[in-house]
Amino acid sequence: MDPLFEIRKELDRCGSGSIAVVLANQLRRAIADGHLPSGAKLPATRKAQAAFGISRNTLADVYERLVAEGHLISRHGSGIYVADIRKPRRLRTPPKTRGRISGFELNPFWKQSEAAGEIGFWTDPNDDASAPLEVDFRPGLVDSQLFPYDIYRRITAKQLRGLEIKLPQVQRPQRNRDSYPLRAAIAAHVAMTRGVTCDPDRVLVTTGAQQTFDLLARLLTTHGNTLVTVEDPGYPPMRVPFRAAGALLAPVGVDREGLKVAEIPEGTKIICVRPSHQYPLGITMSPRRRAALHAFARKNAAIIIEDDYDGEFQLDSTPVDTLWNTDTSDYVFYVGTFSKIILPAFRLGFVIVPDWALDTITLIKNSTDGPRSIPVEDGVAIFIAEGHLMRHIRKMRTIYRKRRDLIVDFLERPLAQWLNPLKCSCGMHLAALSTTDISMESVTRMTRAEGVAIHTLDRYFLGERTLSGLVFGFGVTNEAGIESGLRTLQRSLENNLR
Amino acid sequence: MDPLFEIRKELDRCGSGSIAVVLANQLRRAIADGHLPSGAKLPATRKAQAAFGISRNTLADVYERLVAEGHLISRHGSGIYVADIRKPRRLRTPPKTRGRISGFELNPFWKQSEAAGEIGFWTDPNDDASAPLEVDFRPGLVDSQLFPYDIYRRITAKQLRGLEIKLPQVQRPQRNRDSYPLRAAIAAHVAMTRGVTCDPDRVLVTTGAQQTFDLLARLLTTHGNTLVTVEDPGYPPMRVPFRAAGALLAPVGVDREGLKVAEIPEGTKIICVRPSHQYPLGITMSPRRRAALHAFARKNAAIIIEDDYDGEFQLDSTPVDTLWNTDTSDYVFYVGTFSKIILPAFRLGFVIVPDWALDTITLIKNSTDGPRSIPVEDGVAIFIAEGHLMRHIRKMRTIYRKRRDLIVDFLERPLAQWLNPLKCSCGMHLAALSTTDISMESVTRMTRAEGVAIHTLDRYFLGERTLSGLVFGFGVTNEAGIESGLRTLQRSLENNLR
Repeated sequence: MDPLFEIRKELDRCGSGSIAVVLANQLRRAIADGHLPSGAKLPATRKAQAAFGISRNTLADVYERLVAEGHLISRHGSGIYVADIRKPRRLRTPPKTRGRISGFELNPFWKQSEAAGEIGFWTDPNDDASAPLEVDFRPGLVDSQLFPYDIYRRITAKQLRGLEIKLPQVQRPQRNRDSYPLRAAIAAHVAMTRGVTCDPDRVLVTTGAQQTFDLLARLLTTHGNTLVTVEDPGYPPMRVPFRAAGALLAPVGVDREGLKVAEIPEGTKIICVRPSHQYPLGITMSPRRRAALHAFARKNAAIIIEDDYDGEFQLDSTPVDTLWNTDTSDYVFYVGTFSKIILPAFRLGFVIVPDWALDTITLIKNSTDGPRSIPVEDGVAIFIAEGHLMRHIRKMRTIYRKRRDLIVDFLERPLAQWLNPLKCSCGMHLAALSTTDISMESVTRMTRAEGVAIHTLDRYFLGERTLSGLVFGFGVTNEAGIESGLRTLQRSLENNLR
Repeated sequence: MDPLFEIRKELDRCGSGSIAVVLANQLRRAIADGHLPSGAKLPATRKAQAAFGISRNTLADVYERLVAEGHLISRHGSGIYVADIRKPRRLRTPPKTRGRISGFELNPFWKQSEAAGEIGFWTDPNDDASAPLEVDFRPGLVDSQLFPYDIYRRITAKQLRGLEIKLPQVQRPQRNRDSYPLRAAIAAHVAMTRGVTCDPDRVLVTTGAQQTFDLLARLLTTHGNTLVTVEDPGYPPMRVPFRAAGALLAPVGVDREGLKVAEIPEGTKIICVRPSHQYPLGITMSPRRRAALHAFARKNAAIIIEDDYDGEFQLDSTPVDTLWNTDTSDYVFYVGTFSKIILPAFRLGFVIVPDWALDTITLIKNSTDGPRSIPVEDGVAIFIAEGHLMRHIRKMRTIYRKRRDLIVDFLERPLAQWLNPLKCSCGMHLAALSTTDISMESVTRMTRAEGVAIHTLDRYFLGERTLSGLVFGFGVTNEAGIESGLRTLQRSLENNLR
């Protein structure tokens, strides 16, 4: 069967108005089905009438389009051929500018520069133009080299073997949530590492912290009517979903004991805190402040969102409890993520939800996203259930403790005249407050020019910048890098005095 | 080193107010670290003072908590032992009801019953109590048995091998979007199957259709000010994100040519259509209506959202074009999904975005979710690039065509006196309008009692139910099932006459 003949028959059937479209589609179909194989030569445009019963210009237009799409190639002086499908040509969008639509009003919230700045707070626009990066002290980085890839591969391969048995034939909007194995694994994980005991039905699996904040914002915020207290300095990206949902944000300061609970404004309905490991100051909320926060919440019928993002990495022997554990009235939402302990690339987070909010947050999740991908989640559930995550955490905890101690030593001796470290008992970054008038921005620009990236506290503030200092992440930097990087910092600080 | 001795030293250091918490955490830590191995016996409560310097009641409380958490087990008459961590006990949430918080106002939108009903539109609450399901004609189901699992496994295993090299060390909020390979693979896929040619930078990867609708709703809707036309009957879950974003929905009827464009109300800013394969009626929008729709959009500066959810499955030789291809002013958002061609469980969708909306929708994605999971997306990119998806589509297309023909034959002959099929050129379901007064609800209740599930058109309407009929999905039912199911339907229709 000659595919071109079949195409000609099809063209003869259709009206002239759509002949170019029909021919283009017929050719695409024939190429995709293999009836016109790679390398096959197509009729020259001068044979358009004989081959297809159309004008030369029409055929030239069709060929031009299919060449742009990558189906055909034009060999100069030789003709038009079917392209090798294994090597797709670079695709380009056809110009769509004639009578271009104008005046469509996008939702105005997103056009504000604030959201873009907060989502992109971490990177520096000028950074790519700078010197090569040798030592990276920026917080939030995770060393992926130490992850047990072999184990993960083994588990995933094994789990893939039974895929056809495991997968449901149909994915329907679920009245409940994702698969029980992953929720049970998460519940066991937080019980083991944080003493947070809950029924797996209370666990909502998300794609990570950002989605969790967005779901909570949509659940808890009534437009224009909900006052949300956030720690200041804090984590900028979290603010965006709350603002998008119409919340009013109240930045409340942080001192060495944590959030200044006495300064939480009356009328606050939601308080977002990171009590195990403040971001970015790295401190742990004192028992006194925790008690005060609970008292505030009870008195004002307010919600607490506890983001325990790296709570597994407790570096000292004194344990750090959770607000969730000391909540007796079910007003704490406990947020966790696997970005810091498995890998950010896995995009897995969760929130433990109070009983009274479970159905509603499930509805929101199903309305805006849906259940998670089964191939990913089963592998993670097994990885957790077999104890590999705990082993990995224990290994990393020892490494992080050493790195923290090294940084603190350096801060307490060579750098003591400029910086005063805040106590860090948990997690992968700490902060140090500046004790002089030296501009931290200027110092970090100097260190960056020598290949050492350090964040100042500036970018973390929503309100007035009441503290000046530096953040030291040690998720990625090894001990040699820490030494080297801090010596560079020392030189920059010394140079700033002159 | 005796772990209990270390714990005792720690307890001696802390204040009595927190001794129970500290002990509980210390025991958890010791169990997690392996210092207290599975099966180790703990001091009896009567030895509380000697072992830990605390009261018997305090120790009993701590044990009770750790037993509830699954760390310890209580053997009657024998004592308290460390549990075997490989067999976690069923976790239960401790009661959180004392002084239970009351009066926290959740966002009122989600408490409306409409959203829950639309998200859950597909299932029947009473369905589980019915007879076993033998034949399923409900739309939206995909036969996962025919998926090439071996190939997918091979690709994933191969891709996992290089995981440590591929994964970035850090996941940062991205200024652009997900990895180029997947976006390029998607761009090549839609070019090959639908003639939609675009630069891969215009592709936004999502977790599926529901997330895509939510992103578009948040991008395009200004609260209370945006009129959105939806096909009626239509796809209920899509309405929820638009309503949640404050859109006003205008249901517009559908006839054999598709959306009744002349009835689109003035002031409409967004039109959501499924022109390749209307859901649930299964028809293809006529060229005439497509031209009229384009004219409306240009005249009114309105957006078209084209949901081409199963556009690859063109069952006839006459090709079905896209609205995107005939748009010259960049006002069409082209939505696709892999739920119907790979598997719903993979949770992968995409939207091709006009140039002027690209930055904003990227910001929204990064604010409410973030980039996709790399392990999943790389495997899919390779699966597509190696041509396996195309082969799978071609194989399924032949199967679906046969099933469709079988259903149409049956409808046109034995069932002709009750049902009139609507022309279906594409996809995995078709519809038939009722030609008598017989209650379709009553007929489908009868068929369900005999194990055959069929949807009537009722549940798809937003506005007045102007059409009466049945939907026939054939994504899952094989030819034997189709025969058997339709004979059951025939009997039910015959019985309804008496």
